Amino acid sequence: MDQPGVLSFALTGYEFSAVYNMLSLGIASMVFTSIFLWVARDRVLPKYRMAVMVSATVTSIAAYHYFRMFDSFSHGYGINESTKAAAATGADMLAFGAANYNVGYRYIDWFLTVPLLLVELVAVLGLAKAISSSLLKRLVPAAALMIILGYPGDAKLDLLPMAAGGWTGEAAVWGLLSTIPFLYIMYVLWVEMKKSLSSQSEKVRGLFQTLRVLLLATWGVYPITFILAMNGPEVATASEVVAREVGYTIADILAKCLFGLLIFSIARIKSAEESKEHAAAEGH
Amino acid sequence: MDQPGVLSFALTGYEFSAVYNMLSLGIASMVFTSIFLWVARDRVLPKYRMAVMVSATVTSIAAYHYFRMFDSFSHGYGINESTKAAAATGADMLAFGAANYNVGYRYIDWFLTVPLLLVELVAVLGLAKAISSSLLKRLVPAAALMIILGYPGDAKLDLLPMAAGGWTGEAAVWGLLSTIPFLYIMYVLWVEMKKSLSSQSEKVRGLFQTLRVLLLATWGVYPITFILAMNGPEVATASEVVAREVGYTIADILAKCLFGLLIFSIARIKSAEESKEHAAAEGH
Repeated sequence: MDQPGVLSFALTGYEFSAVYNMLSLGIASMVFTSIFLWVARDRVLPKYRMAVMVSATVTSIAAYHYFRMFDSFSHGYGINESTKAAAATGADMLAFGAANYNVGYRYIDWFLTVPLLLVELVAVLGLAKAISSSLLKRLVPAAALMIILGYPGDAKLDLLPMAAGGWTGEAAVWGLLSTIPFLYIMYVLWVEMKKSLSSQSEKVRGLFQTLRVLLLATWGVYPITFILAMNGPEVATASEVVAREVGYTIADILAKCLFGLLIFSIARIKSAEESKEHAAAEGH
Repeated sequence: MDQPGVLSFALTGYEFSAVYNMLSLGIASMVFTSIFLWVARDRVLPKYRMAVMVSATVTSIAAYHYFRMFDSFSHGYGINESTKAAAATGADMLAFGAANYNVGYRYIDWFLTVPLLLVELVAVLGLAKAISSSLLKRLVPAAALMIILGYPGDAKLDLLPMAAGGWTGEAAVWGLLSTIPFLYIMYVLWVEMKKSLSSQSEKVRGLFQTLRVLLLATWGVYPITFILAMNGPEVATASEVVAREVGYTIADILAKCLFGLLIFSIARIKSAEESKEHAAAEGH
């Protein structure tokens, strides 16, 4: 693993360190939220443990991908044998970094974790099985579809025969297609779930509202980054690389770690509401 | 570990990334399904925990092999010191990749996991000991035999003295021999197990039907790939390498992770059916 130098080839030392340290923060957040949640599942009633376990699974999957991205970034943008050799040939080092930093890890991570975030959200409400299962049958496929449709645009795959607008037009098409399942998920969460929430206590409704806003706010980072990177198939500038990696990482930490810990809080509150023994034992 | 470049020697950058990211998805799916199932065994009645633990063992074994395959693939087909040295001598890089990518990992994995998948399937039904044990005494050896007989064909070992048909004839012989235990397993699952299923609830029968179809569909990917690769002992083309690795990985994720999670669902349903206390505690 390569350490940040004063000056790496494609990014300045400060730029490199910003992403490098942010990815390391991502690793630390995901790993230790995971360990905490796996162990903390015992602090809620059995019926809410699945929601906590799914939250722990989400941050664990992300932990794996942050380790991979950290290595991939160091390899593509750091000072090491490969980048020294490439720099010696006079290669465009930003293009070299872009080609050697594997953007696939983020999309595979989201493909697995975004549907699971919606599973956590529904599981923690402890709704009747039929209602939960009807919600999940719509939310999970929509979430997977949203990620799959976003990928060709962000990875600049160039799959469609676009005349007008060229590549920017193509990215816009994928971005718009991906927005349809996103809006559908928001519709289900904000409109359809109103009924299911009426049976919850005021405290739980308040936290659920925070969760929905958190989803809307953090998921909003992704399309903004997507649009900023849409200006063409050419290699992103150094500041675009830094903004994208830092932005995605902050959004991921909020959407997975903070989200998972809020799910755990809801599970704690509902456990205390439903069992006096539990509330007394846990000091509520 | 080497990252995907714009162009690897034997595969294009897109081809390399497709397999690389698919193997990484394999790692993530196997590792975190394993952790989830190991922890989730407590969420079912004791009598169904063995089935969940065997499911977790299967995905754990596969996780190990996916780490190995990921490294082996990067070593054989990626840009690194070995492939650079080979390319400098003008070697056929597809043949170099094929020789350095260890196909043995997949067969060792299947040899261990395929019999265990049938153990999960029988264990979760909670049949009388005598019936379970009679089923397993036939299913487990048949599954092991199926994998052993398939290997010489897929690894192109050239063990038989074939005159007519040459190597394609030999592969066809191994393929046919391997099909006999496969058909026997299907016979046991679809015909002989009919009796045992009559004692199960409608929900369980429905999920068991899904499991059988999943086995038939995913195991079907393997012979299709086998037949496509049967056209001779020469090195597979780049697109054949990609199709084989992507196809096997998707089939493995469905046959092991999805299968294991369905086994867990059956165990949850049967636990709730058999114990009112369990059902109430788990919020069924």
